[in-house]
Amino acid sequence: MKIILYAFIVYFSLFFTSNPPAIKPDTPDDQALKAIYDEALNKSWGYTNLEHLCKNIGPRLSGSESAATAVTWSSDVLRKLSDTVYLQQVEVPVWERGKKTEAEALLGNNDIVELDACALGGSVATLNNRSLTAEVVEVKSSKDLLIKGKDAIKDKIVFYNCEMDPTLINNFEAYDQAMDECFNGTGDAAQYGAQAVLVRSLTHAEDEYPHTQTITYKDPNKKIPALALSTKSANFLRSAIATDDKLKVTMQTDCTAKGTAKSHNVIAEIKGSKYPNEVILVSAYLDSWDLGEGAQANGAGAMHAMEVLYLFKKLKIQPQHTIRCVLYTNSLFGGAGAKKYAEEMRKNREKHILAIESDRGGFVPQGFNIGGTPLAAEATIQQLRRYAYLFKPYNLFYFEKGETGADIEALKTGDVPLISLFTESQRYFDYHNAATDVYENVNKRELELGSASIASLVYLIDKYGLPMQSGGTRK
Amino acid sequence: MKIILYAFIVYFSLFFTSNPPAIKPDTPDDQALKAIYDEALNKSWGYTNLEHLCKNIGPRLSGSESAATAVTWSSDVLRKLSDTVYLQQVEVPVWERGKKTEAEALLGNNDIVELDACALGGSVATLNNRSLTAEVVEVKSSKDLLIKGKDAIKDKIVFYNCEMDPTLINNFEAYDQAMDECFNGTGDAAQYGAQAVLVRSLTHAEDEYPHTQTITYKDPNKKIPALALSTKSANFLRSAIATDDKLKVTMQTDCTAKGTAKSHNVIAEIKGSKYPNEVILVSAYLDSWDLGEGAQANGAGAMHAMEVLYLFKKLKIQPQHTIRCVLYTNSLFGGAGAKKYAEEMRKNREKHILAIESDRGGFVPQGFNIGGTPLAAEATIQQLRRYAYLFKPYNLFYFEKGETGADIEALKTGDVPLISLFTESQRYFDYHNAATDVYENVNKRELELGSASIASLVYLIDKYGLPMQSGGTRK
Repeated sequence: MKIILYAFIVYFSLFFTSNPPAIKPDTPDDQALKAIYDEALNKSWGYTNLEHLCKNIGPRLSGSESAATAVTWSSDVLRKLSDTVYLQQVEVPVWERGKKTEAEALLGNNDIVELDACALGGSVATLNNRSLTAEVVEVKSSKDLLIKGKDAIKDKIVFYNCEMDPTLINNFEAYDQAMDECFNGTGDAAQYGAQAVLVRSLTHAEDEYPHTQTITYKDPNKKIPALALSTKSANFLRSAIATDDKLKVTMQTDCTAKGTAKSHNVIAEIKGSKYPNEVILVSAYLDSWDLGEGAQANGAGAMHAMEVLYLFKKLKIQPQHTIRCVLYTNSLFGGAGAKKYAEEMRKNREKHILAIESDRGGFVPQGFNIGGTPLAAEATIQQLRRYAYLFKPYNLFYFEKGETGADIEALKTGDVPLISLFTESQRYFDYHNAATDVYENVNKRELELGSASIASLVYLIDKYGLPMQSGGTRK
Repeated sequence: MKIILYAFIVYFSLFFTSNPPAIKPDTPDDQALKAIYDEALNKSWGYTNLEHLCKNIGPRLSGSESAATAVTWSSDVLRKLSDTVYLQQVEVPVWERGKKTEAEALLGNNDIVELDACALGGSVATLNNRSLTAEVVEVKSSKDLLIKGKDAIKDKIVFYNCEMDPTLINNFEAYDQAMDECFNGTGDAAQYGAQAVLVRSLTHAEDEYPHTQTITYKDPNKKIPALALSTKSANFLRSAIATDDKLKVTMQTDCTAKGTAKSHNVIAEIKGSKYPNEVILVSAYLDSWDLGEGAQANGAGAMHAMEVLYLFKKLKIQPQHTIRCVLYTNSLFGGAGAKKYAEEMRKNREKHILAIESDRGGFVPQGFNIGGTPLAAEATIQQLRRYAYLFKPYNLFYFEKGETGADIEALKTGDVPLISLFTESQRYFDYHNAATDVYENVNKRELELGSASIASLVYLIDKYGLPMQSGGTRK
């Protein structure tokens, strides 16, 4: 009878307990990774928390009240998973979108066509918040301004109409290229005497959603209003200009800069048992644009970073090194959070052995982009490739030198390798910085695979060290 | 002046013509693949046609009028891309969902809770199309029926509540496992005297959409009504039963079988210049369930197969072997189309050197599942791995032995290798057989990458042959 009762209890504790077996130091690596993935895929910890961040807190432009709420909430959540949680104060610029942004094309036949528009981050308002009307000049880059000359640009609205190259497989490459060739030049239009700027949204999606972005003016005394257009509106405007090269647009925005505010980086740690002063950093930015809910950019990344601590805690993994989760503020509006973190790290001579960031959305992970000094990157790539057989069951196959996240870029010193989660990016720019970047457009399983991938990487590097560390890898 | 005019013409013909440069036999392979991908990603041929199929034709259950329209439309489209197009007549069963399917849980407190339900394909109606009410017995598999015994099942409604295993990375594995362990047994409930069957939808998505499927009765004289429940309704029903083990459900459906109808496989060919009697088959099923628009299942696959001919035609690739596109009818309701195709192929002694199918949706391709005889599969895997360096820029990394499409399974004879496009499947079952399987849930670029991947594979195998062919690879 006792045996039956015992069997019954074992059966129930196996199937109904919410506590998975602990990963002890002698657990074989493939079993440890399986336990990490199983926990992430079974419990949906990150997806549940993402729902709260997106639906209850919502968009969180740094310096806003909701950004402060997100800091408080994430600190509270991390407190249950960590040995220490603290905030790092950061001064951030405040900018508000205002209540009314509009643009309309005035066609030759007196028809007026409304364009889907939003203000670019940091844009000034139209004069007295009233509408302005001017002829439109279409360009592909600032080189076109030079070719056309000041007389052709003066008092006009300059329309930057650059598409992301659809033939590049990696959308981030296409985005970076369009940013370099086109978007980063939008600030030049003011220098040529333009009244305002319209910019085609950087996305492959052909739809009615404008995607915001930050405009960088070249001269702080020469700022002109700047709006993004949806790709459908940009296509319409292009065809309208093709039939009427004197086409006028009327536009209006009451967005405004409002000085600075105090914001915070959130920092949470599980102390290392053997090397407490050596930090493995898992990080992501927590602020977002104000149009959608900041779900793919970058609520997903923030959940990835936080879930690493959840998985270590839940699976009772005692790391040798200190695992530190950092959620940066102000990544999208100046990067003050990451700068502050790097400054403090240097000032306090904190030793980081690895800096990881997730900023490519909660899409299916394919592997890791690896950066840092050429030597550190190469040695780290070689090490990760030795783990390829462990990652293969999870379809992680990509361990290449590549661009890592903007926020860990500030940590690039000495031989600290930088690693970013490399996700399958075909859909990323469909939502990026637009009203469509909402919780519903994050797939639960895709998000969970990302958390498990980063946690697995941290697990292996914590266990075996890195070649660039004093003493090299420890196995 | 002439030179300027000429330069002008060359410039414009380069930038404004819709004709990309032809791929000649001496084009280096990497350039040929780049031309294929560029054309697919630039022109969105498949995505445009998918919109027509989904929005203008819509769902196309084999035997229905819209299935016939899809056959006519796809033949017309293929006629512009091929040397020959013909139809192959197939007799298919007809089943109609009817006008009213409902299920409600009758709670102890007299509350009635509506459940999200749809009839399973092939289900009979409730008696006289009226509602039936009975106690519900929850099971996980037909083994549970055996354990509970006939007395516990007789006159009850059996509720099959099996979840797909979330810890399996490949969703198709989780689906196949749940089908084997649970779904395929639903027909057994009738043998135990149950009045009706409710089945949890096979999906990881927790939402209100029931996913249909075909029920296979064990005894044609003992058919009982069978409905699928959404995962949310299944979860609700489970918790309601947990508090009330005498819980009753009332349900009703007026679906009906209507004999057979004539349908067609669509067959289109580009004749081979050197081996016109050796066929490389690219295929997909064209029929769909009647709930959504059959977008991911399998409009996407049909576009993949059709776009291979488009890409060959547009890039002026003259294949050595005959490239044949086949769109099967009745894949979802008996597989009569594929059976007919295989029969005719054998009867006419048509030589196939390779059979490819796309039936895993228009998601990001990762590589290929390879099947056929063990010898054929292994030799083909080795050959594809030699092309890995050509596929790497397109993130195709997966060339493994695995389950290939159900429709090419019928062709498994001799040493013909079978290949299925292996797509990233995390979202596939969110839409599969549900009302959410609509055009908007197919991503343009993800679809295009699939077409280009298959066309590239066909290009390489047409050029170099296969090791199992007489004479082996030709280079």
